[in-house]
Amino acid sequence: MSRSPGRKQENNKISRELFVLTYGALVAQLCKDYEKDEDVNTCLDRMGYGIGIRLIDDFLARSGVKKCRSYSETADMIAQVAFKMYLGVTPSVSCTSAAGNEFSLILDKNPLVDFVEELPAERASLCYCNLLCGVIRGALEMVHLAAEVTFLQDRLKGDAVTEIGITFLRKPEDRKHKR
Amino acid sequence: MSRSPGRKQENNKISRELFVLTYGALVAQLCKDYEKDEDVNTCLDRMGYGIGIRLIDDFLARSGVKKCRSYSETADMIAQVAFKMYLGVTPSVSCTSAAGNEFSLILDKNPLVDFVEELPAERASLCYCNLLCGVIRGALEMVHLAAEVTFLQDRLKGDAVTEIGITFLRKPEDRKHKR
Repeated sequence: MSRSPGRKQENNKISRELFVLTYGALVAQLCKDYEKDEDVNTCLDRMGYGIGIRLIDDFLARSGVKKCRSYSETADMIAQVAFKMYLGVTPSVSCTSAAGNEFSLILDKNPLVDFVEELPAERASLCYCNLLCGVIRGALEMVHLAAEVTFLQDRLKGDAVTEIGITFLRKPEDRKHKR
Repeated sequence: MSRSPGRKQENNKISRELFVLTYGALVAQLCKDYEKDEDVNTCLDRMGYGIGIRLIDDFLARSGVKKCRSYSETADMIAQVAFKMYLGVTPSVSCTSAAGNEFSLILDKNPLVDFVEELPAERASLCYCNLLCGVIRGALEMVHLAAEVTFLQDRLKGDAVTEIGITFLRKPEDRKHKR
């Protein structure tokens, strides 16, 4: 079990399976706590938000990323750096609005559902991974970007891919400057 | 963002901060659900058990570990391979009984509490990381080793280190063979 001391900076790297199973336990607990899927989804989003506002410091420190100059650059950063760093996957990104403020992150494979076969019939409206939406929303808010983040497609619900939609909300001062 | 295709086997590696924060959200939810610390501890242990019995397959496949020939070897494997793989840390191991079936895993630094400053006064009996005990117990059971796993010391409670005690329980057939 000898290890090179030079690899100390990789010490924070872990296999994701324990995380994925722990996340599953969290969702299962919330399903016990709340009868309605909508309440579970809201709770996951709120928890994610709380995580995102704390995770952003770690992300900025670890990634060395500087200020993004556009919504497009921000969306790429989320997909290519943040998802890679925290989930080990890189979604593809597409801009979905002419205004340039709506983006889709497309996941061919969603590692968070590795151990989930399908949603139970009585949980058809559950957004199993809704925590991620909250994390993205919370992290963006801490860099002064308001956004709506929701699941648009979900392989767990029979869609071909998993798609997270991010809509950057223009800030009042943006509008003022544009006048 | 170019990546060498040769590193594909490392695709499952992630930074642990999202996991640590998600675990914190899980514990916080259980603290909302259960008034008594003992109930939270039991729930975490039970969840961990459910995770351990599933995680063992991943561990055996990924580590390539063969059957351990002694309790001591098993304890070393948990510390040096499993903890490293799933939490990015390597506890030190010591045997704590003359009978050779009790071991301590000592963590100078517990990554699961990275974002936790201290337990609230009203949660003084909480075993914050009790999920880990359940995971170890569940995983061991799947390789036909019954064990009791508990926290003996916890830095969150003011102890100098965090110490997980593993007591391997001799199986009835072991005793029979020894007669």
